[in-house]
Amino acid sequence: MSSLSKIVLGIDCGTAIVGWSVIGVKGNKFEHKGHGAITTEKGNDMSLRLKKIYEELLIIIEKYKPTEMAIEELFFFKNKTTVITVSQGRGVTVLAGAMKGLPVYGYTPLQVKQAVTGYGRAEKDQVKFMVSKILGLKDPPKLDDINDALAVSICHINST
Amino acid sequence: MSSLSKIVLGIDCGTAIVGWSVIGVKGNKFEHKGHGAITTEKGNDMSLRLKKIYEELLIIIEKYKPTEMAIEELFFFKNKTTVITVSQGRGVTVLAGAMKGLPVYGYTPLQVKQAVTGYGRAEKDQVKFMVSKILGLKDPPKLDDINDALAVSICHINST
Repeated sequence: MSSLSKIVLGIDCGTAIVGWSVIGVKGNKFEHKGHGAITTEKGNDMSLRLKKIYEELLIIIEKYKPTEMAIEELFFFKNKTTVITVSQGRGVTVLAGAMKGLPVYGYTPLQVKQAVTGYGRAEKDQVKFMVSKILGLKDPPKLDDINDALAVSICHINST
Repeated sequence: MSSLSKIVLGIDCGTAIVGWSVIGVKGNKFEHKGHGAITTEKGNDMSLRLKKIYEELLIIIEKYKPTEMAIEELFFFKNKTTVITVSQGRGVTVLAGAMKGLPVYGYTPLQVKQAVTGYGRAEKDQVKFMVSKILGLKDPPKLDDINDALAVSICHINST
């Protein structure tokens, strides 16, 4: 692990589902280290849902020891309730990185899609296809949230 | 302190300024215990601003040992950038309460104004005047954010 020049924790924001990915990079090669989703139940108290997201992220950071965090910027929403809850989730996600000393980098969905597919308005399926191709995954994750988290890690690595 | 039946940490959300208040209640009497504002610099990285808010809240909770948290619900904003940053701040604020085992209660600005002034559309100055009157403060706080934090504590106590 110490031979990797950087290890990126990529995050797809949410409150019900937070997608995450860890990708190392050595020279110009990607090394897929892990991915998953933190899920919280909609019926539960928001404070407990935020606590679960925060605590699980701390465990992921402890386990994979990323050197930086990459996360999608929020900028467009159809309704105000969504923007508030997703932003609250983003707040505790960014905090988990900051508490562990990680620099946090934000990317717009357009930048992420552009970096992965070469096209800023790519469909979910194109992102999924390219993510697995770039990383050489034999078993692509089914959840969009995880594919988006993998994509934001790739975007960050390609941008730096 | 142990003779107080409850101690409320009231919060006025924000990222640049987070107003806070601690009010105890014993029977039907308020006991003002403290108030203040956590401030973060606009030029600083958002992850470090959120970390500062979170860490200062933990210190306040350690010091005053509140039994519950009351915080304004967010629901209306003029622009999307504001709603995202303020919601992120609210997320880490609620998290601080949850990590310390406090139940977190949300109130709309209308409920808060109603509880303090008897009128849901009261002006800032009316809220400020009534807060100091109710709590018997000789030197009313100048910051609206602190008066709003005192108001949300009063609102919670009067609602429960």
